[in-house]
Amino acid sequence: MAAMPRYALLVEYDGAPFAGWQRQADQPSVQGAIEAALAKLERREHTIAAAGRTDAGVHAYGQVAHCDMEKDWDPFRLSEALNHHLKPLPVAIRDCRRVGDDWHARFSAYERQYIFRLLNRRAPATHLKGYVWQVAHPLELEPMQEAANMLLGLHDFTTFRASICQAASPVKTLDKFDIEQIETESGTEFRFHLAARSFLHNQVRSFVGTLERVGAGSWQPEDVRTALEACDRAACGPVSPPQGLYLSKVGYPDNPFDL
Amino acid sequence: MAAMPRYALLVEYDGAPFAGWQRQADQPSVQGAIEAALAKLERREHTIAAAGRTDAGVHAYGQVAHCDMEKDWDPFRLSEALNHHLKPLPVAIRDCRRVGDDWHARFSAYERQYIFRLLNRRAPATHLKGYVWQVAHPLELEPMQEAANMLLGLHDFTTFRASICQAASPVKTLDKFDIEQIETESGTEFRFHLAARSFLHNQVRSFVGTLERVGAGSWQPEDVRTALEACDRAACGPVSPPQGLYLSKVGYPDNPFDL
Repeated sequence: MAAMPRYALLVEYDGAPFAGWQRQADQPSVQGAIEAALAKLERREHTIAAAGRTDAGVHAYGQVAHCDMEKDWDPFRLSEALNHHLKPLPVAIRDCRRVGDDWHARFSAYERQYIFRLLNRRAPATHLKGYVWQVAHPLELEPMQEAANMLLGLHDFTTFRASICQAASPVKTLDKFDIEQIETESGTEFRFHLAARSFLHNQVRSFVGTLERVGAGSWQPEDVRTALEACDRAACGPVSPPQGLYLSKVGYPDNPFDL
Repeated sequence: MAAMPRYALLVEYDGAPFAGWQRQADQPSVQGAIEAALAKLERREHTIAAAGRTDAGVHAYGQVAHCDMEKDWDPFRLSEALNHHLKPLPVAIRDCRRVGDDWHARFSAYERQYIFRLLNRRAPATHLKGYVWQVAHPLELEPMQEAANMLLGLHDFTTFRASICQAASPVKTLDKFDIEQIETESGTEFRFHLAARSFLHNQVRSFVGTLERVGAGSWQPEDVRTALEACDRAACGPVSPPQGLYLSKVGYPDNPFDL
């Protein structure tokens, strides 16, 4: 019997109405929404895998999942049909490609990229409400970037890991942590760009919440190194809220989406 | 008797829940929302004036209004109090300045700037739903810019004016019409940047809807000149929907906001 054809899906979503990526019994999830749309196309149970299991309220520009189908779907028609059945949920299949049977959205990935958006202004957000973390007091870019640089490379990230994290080891390599300050129509926005092979649970939000303290002047950049070296969750700064966080891109040796 | 102190307000809003800027008897309006917040501070009827009366669904990054108060408010405290009473509506006072008695948000303005945001991609919008006009088929920047250039300068804009427009004359000068193509995390976005002393009713949406036809290849740039010269509303292309349109900035001889 031939294997079922496998498809890679490039997925964008607004995390607000969901309890996270992962399917749950009694709560809406992004995985559950896509599996329900798949069941409209092939009436059976579907189980899809994804590169990153984002938390409740976390968004994605470029989550990647894969699904196995019985029928030999044209990839473009599959994405169109899924988008049709996903309406009116804020989940969109941006691209769909046929991949090999051994290609896996999670295990084939060698890199995850996240963006965290922080709106730094006094007046309440209007258009961007729910899409940024709003901080009213002024923040300084330079000390935040100085502290971010101390987190680069191979470290035991126990300090920046949720106590419920299930990763086998707290030792990870952070490959990129660039902070960009941009002046937008809505005021000053800081965008934190991170990349690593994989992240611990709440790692990005623990980083950003801690760096915000540095940008505000409450912490010195050197305090972040001290917190890192403590390897103690209690040494972490506040954890930022989820609504500024976006899974932006997943890297694969042969990226099916030509990204 | 001394005149009441006058304040200029820099206002951002999400136009979706409102029937437009202008106060109406039975429908929510941005003007009505701000006047209701003012009535919480000084219990009486308030009537504020604004630089541009945006239509239903149209957003603002930088609308400007003015209000007259009985008490001598500190401008920062006035903006904070208004933002407090505006919650949870998506209206924010971004800045507030004391201005002279003869300063007028509408009549002192010498320029209005608008931005129109068009998301050009196939997959349904998620984060940007309601904040852009989404066009699924590909658009070309160059012919759109070529057509936009034909609209610059002094013209009779009858073709691009709503039949209900109340302006005394259809003759206006368009000072700027630049189209920017940017690659964002959500895909390709076209931003149309326009500036003029004043605009006719539906002028920007009539421009953008017509240029979209040019970008799609259905119209040639030269057809826009023909439509303009016809001075006939029937010669206009389709009118774009309102949700991509933002009043972005108002120009004043001595800008109270130092913008």
